[in-house]
Amino acid sequence: LKDVNSSPQTTGNIVLVGADELRTACSKAFQCAGTPKRDADLAAESLVDSNLRGIDTHGVIRLAKYVRGLKKGTINPRPKVKVTHSALATIQIDGDNGLGSVVASRAMRELIRLCKRTGVAAVGIHSSNHYGTVSYYLLKAAAQGLIGIGFVHGESLQAPFGGTEPFFGTNPLAFVFPAPGTPIVVDFATSATTFGRIMQARALERSLPEGTALDKQGNATTDPSQAVRILPAAGHKGYGLALAVEVFSAILNGCPFGPHVPPVFRDDIEEPGRLGHFFLAIDPRFFCGIDPFSAGIGRMVRELHESKPAPGFETVMVPGEPENRTYTERIRLGIPLSPDLWDTIQRLACT
Amino acid sequence: LKDVNSSPQTTGNIVLVGADELRTACSKAFQCAGTPKRDADLAAESLVDSNLRGIDTHGVIRLAKYVRGLKKGTINPRPKVKVTHSALATIQIDGDNGLGSVVASRAMRELIRLCKRTGVAAVGIHSSNHYGTVSYYLLKAAAQGLIGIGFVHGESLQAPFGGTEPFFGTNPLAFVFPAPGTPIVVDFATSATTFGRIMQARALERSLPEGTALDKQGNATTDPSQAVRILPAAGHKGYGLALAVEVFSAILNGCPFGPHVPPVFRDDIEEPGRLGHFFLAIDPRFFCGIDPFSAGIGRMVRELHESKPAPGFETVMVPGEPENRTYTERIRLGIPLSPDLWDTIQRLACT
Repeated sequence: LKDVNSSPQTTGNIVLVGADELRTACSKAFQCAGTPKRDADLAAESLVDSNLRGIDTHGVIRLAKYVRGLKKGTINPRPKVKVTHSALATIQIDGDNGLGSVVASRAMRELIRLCKRTGVAAVGIHSSNHYGTVSYYLLKAAAQGLIGIGFVHGESLQAPFGGTEPFFGTNPLAFVFPAPGTPIVVDFATSATTFGRIMQARALERSLPEGTALDKQGNATTDPSQAVRILPAAGHKGYGLALAVEVFSAILNGCPFGPHVPPVFRDDIEEPGRLGHFFLAIDPRFFCGIDPFSAGIGRMVRELHESKPAPGFETVMVPGEPENRTYTERIRLGIPLSPDLWDTIQRLACT
Repeated sequence: LKDVNSSPQTTGNIVLVGADELRTACSKAFQCAGTPKRDADLAAESLVDSNLRGIDTHGVIRLAKYVRGLKKGTINPRPKVKVTHSALATIQIDGDNGLGSVVASRAMRELIRLCKRTGVAAVGIHSSNHYGTVSYYLLKAAAQGLIGIGFVHGESLQAPFGGTEPFFGTNPLAFVFPAPGTPIVVDFATSATTFGRIMQARALERSLPEGTALDKQGNATTDPSQAVRILPAAGHKGYGLALAVEVFSAILNGCPFGPHVPPVFRDDIEEPGRLGHFFLAIDPRFFCGIDPFSAGIGRMVRELHESKPAPGFETVMVPGEPENRTYTERIRLGIPLSPDLWDTIQRLACT
């Protein structure tokens, strides 16, 4: 993939930065903060990929926070990631408090290698940090023809179903399926909303949808300025998923869970994130086989596209398709950033 | 576990039947339809377990349908279930069109044995039939200290997000975690409602919650008499999960998917269900270890129980807890059935 933009272009209040240039700047910023080039490139790629897919909340907007952590020492710029093959099909990884993207990229490489031999494999990771989107790592498995499942927990924000106090994080889970053309990407928060969306509603002075947030007293609110806790998606269903994500990410790996997760969203925090991750990979070769699997997925996608859309929808889309469209567009046009953010990134890149 | 009731008791319009007696009657009904005793006992146990846990829609109310299928030959009463170890950690099962509960019970036995050696294992099943609740089989894994994940598809009822035509089934998924005391059971339909609930609303002349169903023309409706299609839970989230469940259950096992699943809910159907199932098991021994895992789960459950309940809730519960309470109650008091249903079961049991 080649970036069309040779240099950033300003359009109104937005700068369009080419993906290559943005990756280079982010990598330099990580290197300036003590990260070896190879790891800095990995971390930069993970951030820029989120922006390319339109998931800007998990993209380069987080760079400054990571760099601050690396400089303060709450994130280890030179982790010695330890890999243990605990059973025939399982891997345990000690992330040594490295950047989440560095640790998770390593975990996924090991998982892919193992899964091709065993048909299904799992990796549990502890002592890691935030890593961006779950699906970014699973897409690496899909590129090798494998199905990926991933879970990640985070800072306590989500009240349990029937409760009012924050317990779980937004606790996303993801499934990525290799498919003819582009993979199918199912990746979402188990909470009804996220803090990113609450901040957005505050900025735009819009109210929140009903049933998504609580105020400080634990009462339902649609006022984004009052919203400090979030609710599970679809009540007990999102709650059940959030709990499952927490068990796989935190408890199975011996990490702090729920309310005990260090509050990494605050700037005055001096302690490591100590997050856990969990990935599974499955090789379709050992079930119906690659060709019938691809043909089946291709046919399902085609039939979903041909299915009658609801009022207000142009077409029935397959999960991951909106992000793929944004990806193609942003590869062509560049990634839209606020001039302030682009300035910050360049400053952090020590250029 | 011992049933207190030695004989059924009639209370108003309800008969309370002891679990043992109900199991015996169901097993006899399966045997009368040509199923060997061992398989008949398995199938009966699976049905009665659903009733004990309060999931009556998946319990003995389905017996007549299974018996009809066995007698007509659309379900094979004496399947030769074939087990293939396709890779180190994967199993493929050909259910030979047997009762879903017989095939899935066999699959789970094989999966548990393999997982204890490999740390994680998966089983893909094809040529099977409806099997009741997903969590019933996963509880067998939890009883051996393993985490279970399960997916099952079904007859096309659920419109995709942004669509109006039925595509996926209610496509439930489940996670079961071994825990001190009773396991944690997350088990739900990825659709916003089920046909069972629509039928219930029709009987009670109640309207459906908004955003759960569509009428024949594909328009939103809250009138249960007009509702013929159901919507995904939480919009694109439930849709993504339903799709993932379909890929694991159907496509990965080479089974018909979505609209191609035989419509087994109709009584005039003469063809086998050809359903697929998928289960994963994970052994916590190969991650943080059994004791830290149990301690972590126990602590999480305790803290959720201590968490402040929302208005209208007595306490924050853990997924599976309401069903556990019902289980305890029904073991003590018996399983409530309509007199008609109990008559039918006894008639089918050839007694």
